[in-house]
Amino acid sequence: MAEKPPATAEAECCPSVLAAPLSDTDAQQLAKGFAALGDPVRIRLLSLIAASGEICSCDLEQPLGKAQPTISHHTKTLADAGLITREKRGRWVWWQVRPERLDALRSALDGT
Amino acid sequence: MAEKPPATAEAECCPSVLAAPLSDTDAQQLAKGFAALGDPVRIRLLSLIAASGEICSCDLEQPLGKAQPTISHHTKTLADAGLITREKRGRWVWWQVRPERLDALRSALDGT
Repeated sequence: MAEKPPATAEAECCPSVLAAPLSDTDAQQLAKGFAALGDPVRIRLLSLIAASGEICSCDLEQPLGKAQPTISHHTKTLADAGLITREKRGRWVWWQVRPERLDALRSALDGT
Repeated sequence: MAEKPPATAEAECCPSVLAAPLSDTDAQQLAKGFAALGDPVRIRLLSLIAASGEICSCDLEQPLGKAQPTISHHTKTLADAGLITREKRGRWVWWQVRPERLDALRSALDGT
C-alpha cells in the first residue's frame, strides 16, 4: 500500500484510530502521514506554508534558518505523505498545504 | 523541552499548526506526539487500547502478532509521548489512552 499514489490512498483513508482495531492498510496510511509530522522542522515548515497560503521555497530559508538542501529534503517528505503540493514557477518551487489530507489525519484522532 | 514531563509539556501545548509560524518549543512538543503515531504497529496498538478502554499487555500479543519485547518497545514510545498511561497489576501492565493528549494533537491540525 505504501506505493499507492496519495490520491488513491486518501480515498481509503482514514477511519478513527480510536473507533476499532485498524487494518494494516489503514494503519500504514495513517502512520505515513503522522511520521511526516514527526519532526519539528517539518512542523514549522508546514506552519509557514499554511500561514502563507502558498510560499516559494526561496522564502523558507530565512524563517527556518535552514539551507535549501535541508528544506528540499523536508518538503519532499511532506509532499510524499500528501500533506503539501508543489508548483514549479521558473527556477523556484511554490508550496501549498493540502487541507483534505490534514483533515483526514485529524479525523483519525476523533472519538477520544 | 524534550526532557520536560508530559504534564508540563501539555499545559504549554498545542496551538494550531496552521494558525501561524510556530515556536521551536511548540514544534518540538507536537513533533514528539506525531512521531509516536508515525508507525503502523503503534497506530494499531493505540487503536486496540482505545477500543478496549483499558487492556493488559498480555492481551496485545495475539491481535498485533508481536512478541512482548516488541510490544514493550512500542508502548514505551507511546507512553513517553504522553499518549497512553500504564498501571501495573501483579506481573502485567495495563494500558489506557490519554484522550487529552490526543485532543491536543488533533487541535494542532485545526484551521485547515
